[in-house]
Amino acid sequence: MPGAIAERVLAGDVRSAARLMRDLDDGRPEARAVLAELFPHTGRAYVVGLTGAPGSGKSSLADRLIAQLRAGGRAVGVVAVDPSSPYTGGAVLGDRIRMQAHALDAGVFIRSMATRGHLGGLSLAAADVVAVMDAMGKDVVLVETVGVGQDEIDVAALAHTVVVVAVPGLGDDVQATKAGLLEIADVFAVNKADREGADRAVHDLRQMQDLQRATGGRAGRGSDWEPPIVKTAAISGLGIADLAAAIERHRAHLEAAGLRRARDVGRARAHFLALLRERLLARALERLAAEQGGLEAVSGRVADRTLDPFSLADELAGRLGA
Amino acid sequence: MPGAIAERVLAGDVRSAARLMRDLDDGRPEARAVLAELFPHTGRAYVVGLTGAPGSGKSSLADRLIAQLRAGGRAVGVVAVDPSSPYTGGAVLGDRIRMQAHALDAGVFIRSMATRGHLGGLSLAAADVVAVMDAMGKDVVLVETVGVGQDEIDVAALAHTVVVVAVPGLGDDVQATKAGLLEIADVFAVNKADREGADRAVHDLRQMQDLQRATGGRAGRGSDWEPPIVKTAAISGLGIADLAAAIERHRAHLEAAGLRRARDVGRARAHFLALLRERLLARALERLAAEQGGLEAVSGRVADRTLDPFSLADELAGRLGA
Repeated sequence: MPGAIAERVLAGDVRSAARLMRDLDDGRPEARAVLAELFPHTGRAYVVGLTGAPGSGKSSLADRLIAQLRAGGRAVGVVAVDPSSPYTGGAVLGDRIRMQAHALDAGVFIRSMATRGHLGGLSLAAADVVAVMDAMGKDVVLVETVGVGQDEIDVAALAHTVVVVAVPGLGDDVQATKAGLLEIADVFAVNKADREGADRAVHDLRQMQDLQRATGGRAGRGSDWEPPIVKTAAISGLGIADLAAAIERHRAHLEAAGLRRARDVGRARAHFLALLRERLLARALERLAAEQGGLEAVSGRVADRTLDPFSLADELAGRLGA
Repeated sequence: MPGAIAERVLAGDVRSAARLMRDLDDGRPEARAVLAELFPHTGRAYVVGLTGAPGSGKSSLADRLIAQLRAGGRAVGVVAVDPSSPYTGGAVLGDRIRMQAHALDAGVFIRSMATRGHLGGLSLAAADVVAVMDAMGKDVVLVETVGVGQDEIDVAALAHTVVVVAVPGLGDDVQATKAGLLEIADVFAVNKADREGADRAVHDLRQMQDLQRATGGRAGRGSDWEPPIVKTAAISGLGIADLAAAIERHRAHLEAAGLRRARDVGRARAHFLALLRERLLARALERLAAEQGGLEAVSGRVADRTLDPFSLADELAGRLGA
């Protein structure tokens, strides 16, 4: 039976949810216990990932998409993964502005998170927040990430539908990046489409899709789904309704093709793996503190080459059983 | 006593080193054993991280820097972290071209790595390769990464000197990104400095440094070190000698200020943590396979909400001891 805090979160209470998220971020064990209580009540929200390189105008696009979803009567949660400093944890101005724009709308809950300080990695922190929003009764949870690294791949694994935001004319490296993003995209948004080169960008993406199909690769993560390419301009609002419709079509496709279950299992796998990584490392560091003088002492001895890090890691992991 | 393979790597044999790196990537236990043999012989190479957003021309800059270091008689190892697909593992054209340019120079060893498929994360794979190049006798190992996420922070922790590559006029998101990169930079390169806006970019960076100092933040990771800002243009070769000199000055600063040891401990910590994460997760997955039908079965039960992932993760981690 859920406790008092869990009950309040399940009832959609914003203050309780916000406090729970903070406590989860701080690694409080009692917050973990609340999340475990909430867990059986999750699995109803539809999770949309929104990812793209810096400079793609992804945040403004998210803002428009939120407004569009709200106009359709959906309760929306947003997890904005913040590219700010891993050390200072400063918030990004754009996020702040966006938060203010929706601050008076009780149907939108926005949680900005820094990439810093998550022992279990960003994907665990994001997965936990998605679970809380799901438990709160949000219909759609938008997970917004920046960058091109493993973090994006991990966070994409939390989503039912992944929107990759491209932008005209960002140069060669971005093309290379797209090759990676092509694989995780269910929908493409070519943003800043009022700029020169938008048609070219659409053309390039289409060519990459054709190439991938011709060489036997999959276009998109589901069978028989050709990721649509939607031109958007967050400033003018161009294409936002089309983008929302494309996400909805992908959702319908997953259901119709019997693929929704596979995505849900994939999402569960991503969350469990992140959780397991965090627990294992946290406990191993406790053991190091008790037995080896802690991580700093161990690191010093490794730096001096007086301790073999391979043997120590093997010994610790070996305790899990044979 | 090092075995035959380790002896060959220590003698600088390229074929043995390349095979060892492949075997490490494939997770072969015997390769791990060779690395443990090599480990006491590492710690001599100076490790330079080179990181920047897509489109910053970082790869071309690395190419120039290699040539500069070679002209100075240094043996150079390069770990190029490849932003290509986590699924297809396709190589990036730019890397291939660069590899060819230095292919006939025995003093340069380049290892391109994809971000995919590293159970222990990219930082472990990169740390292993750095250790092998160190053991080979490379004087300088250049670790090149793309992107702005946790991966970059992790990989930066492997370096003695971190060069952050900025570029004029990439828009607002990039400014936000810089706030994060500011903290890990020991040296800034404003690349494509023949473009309009280079002076502006230098000015912006300087302002951010001033702001950070004024608000009590640290400029750079070492005390009394003001990260220099070097204008470069990889195409024309502008500023490359200055960049190499700035790296050398930072190295001298670390030595003179007694900070080299702290960096070495930090590097050891990063490698050990990555190693520990990988071993713990690998062993835990073995246990799941033996006891719970494997990760897929567990994920399915989590998706159905018939298994509590929190309790299972706790139980596994708890075996490490109390």
